[in-house]
Amino acid sequence: MEELLKIRNLLITNKEVAIISHSNPDGDALGSQIALSLALEKLGIQTLLINKDPVPPSYHFLPNSEIIMPLSKKAQLPGVLIFLDCATLDRTGYETEFLNKQGRIFINIDHHISNDKYADINWVEEKAAATAEMIYDLISLLQVKIDKDIATALYTGISTDTGSFLYENTTSTTHQIASDLINKGANISELRINFYENMSKGRLNLLKKGLNNLSFAQNDKIGWMAFTYSELTNSDAVDSDGDGLINYVKNISEVEVALVFREIEPGKTKVSLRSKSWFDVNQLAAVFQGGGHARAAGCVIEGDQQEIVKKVISKAQESFLQGGHIR
Amino acid sequence: MEELLKIRNLLITNKEVAIISHSNPDGDALGSQIALSLALEKLGIQTLLINKDPVPPSYHFLPNSEIIMPLSKKAQLPGVLIFLDCATLDRTGYETEFLNKQGRIFINIDHHISNDKYADINWVEEKAAATAEMIYDLISLLQVKIDKDIATALYTGISTDTGSFLYENTTSTTHQIASDLINKGANISELRINFYENMSKGRLNLLKKGLNNLSFAQNDKIGWMAFTYSELTNSDAVDSDGDGLINYVKNISEVEVALVFREIEPGKTKVSLRSKSWFDVNQLAAVFQGGGHARAAGCVIEGDQQEIVKKVISKAQESFLQGGHIR
Repeated sequence: MEELLKIRNLLITNKEVAIISHSNPDGDALGSQIALSLALEKLGIQTLLINKDPVPPSYHFLPNSEIIMPLSKKAQLPGVLIFLDCATLDRTGYETEFLNKQGRIFINIDHHISNDKYADINWVEEKAAATAEMIYDLISLLQVKIDKDIATALYTGISTDTGSFLYENTTSTTHQIASDLINKGANISELRINFYENMSKGRLNLLKKGLNNLSFAQNDKIGWMAFTYSELTNSDAVDSDGDGLINYVKNISEVEVALVFREIEPGKTKVSLRSKSWFDVNQLAAVFQGGGHARAAGCVIEGDQQEIVKKVISKAQESFLQGGHIR
Repeated sequence: MEELLKIRNLLITNKEVAIISHSNPDGDALGSQIALSLALEKLGIQTLLINKDPVPPSYHFLPNSEIIMPLSKKAQLPGVLIFLDCATLDRTGYETEFLNKQGRIFINIDHHISNDKYADINWVEEKAAATAEMIYDLISLLQVKIDKDIATALYTGISTDTGSFLYENTTSTTHQIASDLINKGANISELRINFYENMSKGRLNLLKKGLNNLSFAQNDKIGWMAFTYSELTNSDAVDSDGDGLINYVKNISEVEVALVFREIEPGKTKVSLRSKSWFDVNQLAAVFQGGGHARAAGCVIEGDQQEIVKKVISKAQESFLQGGHIR
């Protein structure tokens, strides 16, 4: 917890900080970013909220989500940059921009096992279910009162990163914090209706297509769906619409390793990986320069999609035979 | 809480009780039944666990699930019968058998708003997310130490009845109890893998069929799937496989009221109803002699399925125009 104290001490002596979360932001990235910003503003610290990509519509209900902006060439960055939920600097989508630090202090707050500790202060808690759990601790240490908006943002981060308290990362502490956040006014109905019960027609079409084209290997222990660029664009699904599809694959009884291949740009395929109980997908993703957690990881691979599928599935099978660990 | 105390006092003076849950049992019925039984046995009270229907395979991981049996003609019922998660006596599937009480004391522990208080002691808490939350309180009052098995059973009841902490019934207390149960050893991975990530091929086929035959009314605000008896039997899906399908309908952005019609026997259709934020499906189900909660209810209707669908949807539309309440 030495790092946590360092971060507290650094923050309270500053008048302005920038808070940056990873590109294609999810609920944990956005919820953590918004909650920390709201808390720091209460202490009179100005915050600049940066994300390379737009906030997906299903998160527009989050307070202040509209002030999260891409890095502007003109904007003068403050002396302290806080990176949230980013395992590497590259995850911001702005690696080049941040490589020239010009004396700025970088703070890295994250819960990914693949975190490469790129900052001056690296507070990485692999056991935390979400970065939002860590921000909850930080806000408590800063002695800022958690209001309804902070509570909703933090609850969103925790709920979405645990698949609504379902994944292996869910602990007694996770529920303890969730209980406290509901007491403090977290709006769980808004989260449910806007995020969980908000399947667009585009995503519904993708889901139908995906279910009709499920593939399996290794006695159905490995299951996957693949979508080409034209399938994604024709189905009228925005990028974030594809995000939850992998759960439909993982939820099939026999499946231990689930994969979804999405050609997000022509010649560029995003691979999402999940495992049910023992296979280490973080290691599998690492073979292709990706990462994440043992049960949830991702990578991006360039090339022909059919070739990519063949390569990744073949590596998955190989790893399967080695007990889920790549040598 | 007067009833809770009455129940405690009655139980500790008895040597044997029967615990009965509703037919087609779900996680809350089974989890509550098993947890209460384990706790009472620790106090030296013998328990007879009764359910009209078999325990679905996805709940076989629950400790002692194999000792839950249908009512046997030969078995002598004890002097105290505890009904769990049953809004009416009829929900047991054994109404006739229980109408002749022969001096027995009936205890009714339930959280359904439609409960008709059919017993000698009726402890009904509409605000409880699950009957398992109430059993948690009862076990605490009985001063029985919650062990790993009791914790897993109670957690299963709470998790499944809240859609994994997602539905409106989830409160700060719900998470508080969940936190405590994990501390006490609840096996949440077993629950996740056996229940949530256990979609059979039969159910997958039903889901595909259902998604390809979605129907909508009232500007997509009402959505439904219907399955005939032969579709259900041909898809190789057991009855419990159909249970989660309704969430796929409710999760569509526009949908406020979701319905699934399943012809469970030729000429007999089970209707499941869910609503997202304001429509009272308990009232709609009541029109057809069913019931439940404002956001989740069910009924069984006899007749031609197409006619049933027409009748229910027409009533839903009528109710929709009246603001979700039947007059």
